[in-house]
Amino acid sequence: MHSWSEKIQAQWSKKNYLCIGLDPDRTKLPLQRASASETITAFNCALIDATKDSVAAYKPNTAFYEAYGEEGWTALKATCDYIRSAVPEVAIILDAKRGDIGTTNEGYVQMAFDFLKADAITVQPYLGGEALRPFLEHVDKGIIVLCKTSNQGSAEFQNIVTADGPLYIHVAKRVAHKWNENNNCALVIGATYIDELQAVREATPDIPLLIPGIGAQGGDLGATVRAGARNMIIAISRSIIYASQGPDFAEAARAEAQKYHSAIQEALVQ
Amino acid sequence: MHSWSEKIQAQWSKKNYLCIGLDPDRTKLPLQRASASETITAFNCALIDATKDSVAAYKPNTAFYEAYGEEGWTALKATCDYIRSAVPEVAIILDAKRGDIGTTNEGYVQMAFDFLKADAITVQPYLGGEALRPFLEHVDKGIIVLCKTSNQGSAEFQNIVTADGPLYIHVAKRVAHKWNENNNCALVIGATYIDELQAVREATPDIPLLIPGIGAQGGDLGATVRAGARNMIIAISRSIIYASQGPDFAEAARAEAQKYHSAIQEALVQ
Repeated sequence: MHSWSEKIQAQWSKKNYLCIGLDPDRTKLPLQRASASETITAFNCALIDATKDSVAAYKPNTAFYEAYGEEGWTALKATCDYIRSAVPEVAIILDAKRGDIGTTNEGYVQMAFDFLKADAITVQPYLGGEALRPFLEHVDKGIIVLCKTSNQGSAEFQNIVTADGPLYIHVAKRVAHKWNENNNCALVIGATYIDELQAVREATPDIPLLIPGIGAQGGDLGATVRAGARNMIIAISRSIIYASQGPDFAEAARAEAQKYHSAIQEALVQ
Repeated sequence: MHSWSEKIQAQWSKKNYLCIGLDPDRTKLPLQRASASETITAFNCALIDATKDSVAAYKPNTAFYEAYGEEGWTALKATCDYIRSAVPEVAIILDAKRGDIGTTNEGYVQMAFDFLKADAITVQPYLGGEALRPFLEHVDKGIIVLCKTSNQGSAEFQNIVTADGPLYIHVAKRVAHKWNENNNCALVIGATYIDELQAVREATPDIPLLIPGIGAQGGDLGATVRAGARNMIIAISRSIIYASQGPDFAEAARAEAQKYHSAIQEALVQ
């Protein structure tokens, strides 16, 4: 069993920075099985088989599974189990964006790390580091904190001015300098905000970044790679997993993943 | 079918302000059934039967269910179904503290409002109102936004100074004045912070408040009721549901709930 940090460092040493978001929208899936859980699991497993040699991590987002209730949770568990058995060297990031008071977070810890056995989880900063202690004390797991999110309206609170600069910079500094005692923290920064990405990199050069917003959301890959430095995970979902909605979806996803993988390599040497 | 607003207004007109948090910790449950889902469901149904005549709402927190994977979701669904059939006039608040980018939030909307058929959900403010639009546009549902949480370390970001006062006041004003077009928003304010509760009430007098932090967390009930005015929901969990951990747990919960209900009535006339 390797820790989150060991897994992701090993991927970076192979120049793997790509993370595929496993976000199955049942209305778009090019295959059907007897139940929602079987349909979603079959889709994910085919994607994993097709893309596993060019990825650092897979990132299922819980919203796409919870939408189907127990069926969705069965598929999410089966997907995590499959990743661990088929590609144990690839990290599982549970994109759950959870966050509650301390005692309650223990339930989410149990869900993410005991039940699903994910390597990392995304969390909300709003309740503060004290509330997130049940996550942070898991030294072998990655705790990836929302900092500057990729959505259009993320400035509403995240860019509000405080004595320590915009709120997202204050969050980045608190996470990097106060919460990261176990060296297991990372930050989410959307590729749709290159200036903010550069500002976070300057303020906190050493903390790993999880960067969504490339692909369907329109972020610039070259600029992102140059700003993100070497300790980054670039998360792409829709433009890979729905590259084709026909029976060739897995091959199309593989081609798209390899295209992004190559584009990242090119940007790294520019 | 009544909307969230109609349900909660009807409860307030009967002077019902108490909300019981259905947060089953399996290690504390005074009964055992064949499976986790049956154990949790039996516990919740007994609590509901015992307390239903003195409550305005029940509030299951998803963390306590997710900890058990599919089994937990089966219990959560059965609990929500039971509330709707046994006491359709009592509101179901799903304490999920969710929040993602807009398209992804649609999955959480489906989970909360289609699958569980909850009347309201708690959400995180950090991504902004634009991201929360899939929740906010459900005019018949309550969207309850974290503002000043009850935990010890909530000041870390929530009390940071902005040009518009502390961040939690800025959040309260944005929610009350910008996000509340459909008159379906509310705020979470911890009873453990009476000064902040009063400040939010002064800044946004009309928005309903969901107030946890009484009971196990130590908030003062009298001061909370006086500060919360009349459009408030007082959420109590552990001190009611674990009033006894013996076979008399339901009767003990009933007595405790009625004690809180009476104490709220007394505080209202002081």
